[in-house]
This record gives sequence, structure tokens and C-alpha cells, in this order.
Amino acid sequence: MLPEPIKKFIVIFSDLPGIGIRQATRLAFKMVNGGKNSIEETAKAVYDLKHLKICSRCFFVHQNKDGLCDICRDSSRNKSIVAVVEKETDLISLERTKRFKGVYLILGELTKTGALESVQKLRLNHLKSLIKKESGQAEEIIIAFNPTSYGDLNFSMLAKELSPYAKKISRLGRGIPTGGEIEFADEETLASALERRS
Amino acid sequence: MLPEPIKKFIVIFSDLPGIGIRQATRLAFKMVNGGKNSIEETAKAVYDLKHLKICSRCFFVHQNKDGLCDICRDSSRNKSIVAVVEKETDLISLERTKRFKGVYLILGELTKTGALESVQKLRLNHLKSLIKKESGQAEEIIIAFNPTSYGDLNFSMLAKELSPYAKKISRLGRGIPTGGEIEFADEETLASALERRS
Repeated sequence: MLPEPIKKFIVIFSDLPGIGIRQATRLAFKMVNGGKNSIEETAKAVYDLKHLKICSRCFFVHQNKDGLCDICRDSSRNKSIVAVVEKETDLISLERTKRFKGVYLILGELTKTGALESVQKLRLNHLKSLIKKESGQAEEIIIAFNPTSYGDLNFSMLAKELSPYAKKISRLGRGIPTGGEIEFADEETLASALERRS
Repeated sequence: MLPEPIKKFIVIFSDLPGIGIRQATRLAFKMVNGGKNSIEETAKAVYDLKHLKICSRCFFVHQNKDGLCDICRDSSRNKSIVAVVEKETDLISLERTKRFKGVYLILGELTKTGALESVQKLRLNHLKSLIKKESGQAEEIIIAFNPTSYGDLNFSMLAKELSPYAKKISRLGRGIPTGGEIEFADEETLASALERRS
């Protein structure tokens, strides 16, 4: 009964985080009823994500000609202070506090197994060789994971692994409620967590 | 700091029902990290909604050469029994019960003002002239709105307006919990609501 384009849309969108089959169905009809121009605009908004590049230093997105994102290109940022975050949205939340003047490494979302995935290992090795090449040892590496049990587990693992590469390894202060998520912390809480990092 | 394509994506997607700015941001990065092929596939799934046609009889979607959807083309469906529904998703839920052998009219979502919008008035007039042309009077019109206070209000209004056009005006039996929504009813509840319509 449902035409193929609707079925296809539901299959693809219900696979995205936080969108189930019901919401995908509703979205499909919302778009159909929105008209052809709006459908084209939405399709283009998705398609244009294709043109984004990934920073060769921190793995955030950018559109610059050289391989670096706006943060890594910024000469006022201290390349010797690195915040390791899981997700782009964590970086965005930290940037919003305007208190962090270092750079980032986006590691990718941690699995609950306690072990890093191969792409995450590659990114860590990339950070180590950057540090080695640039200064031998960073001033500080902030491991900014969610304060959950497996965030803590991964902190301990990474702190040990990165300790030869930084004078100081820190994590965000427990201003953030334990069990919560960086992405949902308000800016003040997150700012004080940055200032009181331990 | 955020590249233009990400910002644009967030603006468009956070405007869709049930998706806020945070979820739109997360979706954007999920897609970027999914890679170029997956982005293209998703963009195409949106774009292809453009090719859908709207049934000239009931306003459901279709892809047929004539102007009619699969339900309205089906000669086994009784054109003299019409279910008036708000949304396509309500039609889908009713079809899933496999108990309804009539046809539909999709009216569009009711506003809480109690008044019909101009496109809804046009669709009602369309139904009236179809009935006039085909049989003079339909056997039954089922006004299948959510059993909420403004659904009931609109039922009374429409029942009065449509009474010259059908031998019987009915609504779904109150098997559905009052205050709930058709879209979320399980198939059994909805089937008995269809059977015990009053």
C-alpha cells in the first residue's frame, strides 16, 4: 500500500539515532505535504554534508582549503593543550563555554566493552606522533569523557597510555552530575568543570 | 565554528516534528561520519519523495499513472463507505486492521481552533461532489478523528455538515482510550473500534 519512496525513506530514517519507524513515517508525510520545493531543499541540505572535510589534526569537520579545521588553524590556540573528546557535539559544548584555548582530538564514541576500536587507536597514535614531532611532550592532555562508569574506565586506560606524552593528564572537574552527559550540561556547569579540572 | 552545511542541516531538520536542535546536530554528525555513500543515499531518499503523487480522490500518496492511489483504484473497495481521517498515518493504522473495505478522505490535521482550514473545506466539498455525482448519497461516512475534546468538537461539526450526504454518519467505537491517539492504538483495539462504530 505504501509507495516505494515512502518505504525507502522509512527504512533509512528509522535507522538514525532517536528516530523510530513511527517518527520516520510521520517525517515522510510531513515532507510530502511540505511540497516539492521544501523536499528539494531538505535533500540538498543532506547532500551538501558530502562536501565537508575532516580535519587532519583533530578530525572535526571543516571546509577550508588546507586540511585543517577553524580551531586547528587558529594561531591563538595552544596546540600544547589537547582535549580528547568522544564526539563532535562534545567539542561544540566545550567551545560554547569560551574557556578552553587548547585544541581537540575527536576520538569517536566509546564502546561499552572498555576496549578502543581500531579507528580510535589510529587517532590516538596520530595524536602521539603529532606531540612527538611538535614538542616531544604536551603541556596537558584533558581527557574529556562523560563521567560514567565506562567513561572513567576509559579515562584510566588512556591516562596511562598518554602519560609519557604530557606533563599533566587531567579530566573535567566533577561539576557535571555523575551519570550525566557532557552534551546536556549547561554552559556554566561545563565552564566550572573546565576550570576545576583535576 | 560550524561549517555552513552543518548549520543549514540543523536549521532545516530542527524544524521537523519531534526533532530539536540537539537531535538535528547529532543527526548531522551521524551522517557525516556515515560517509559519502550513505549521505548520497539519504539525500536521494528525501529527494525521491518529490516523485510521489497525491490521489485525486482521497489525497493519499501514490505512484500510479492515473490520478488514483492503490486503495481508490481497487474495485473491491466500497466507494460508498468513506472514512474521513486527519492524517496519512491514521489511514495506515486503519488499513493495518484489514477490517475496513471502504475508501478514505484525508482531511489534514485539525487545528485546535475548532474551525476547518481552507484546504480542509476544499477537501470536504470535493467529497460532497463525489458523493453527489456517484450515488447521490453514501451508505456511510465514518468520521475517524482522535477521541479528544477537539476531535469530538470537529466530529459534531462535520456530522452535521455531512448528514445530507450519507445514510449514516458514524465514529469509531470507544475502544480507544479517551485522550489517546489513533496512530498509537494497537491493531486489536483499533479493529474492535471499527467493528463497534456508533
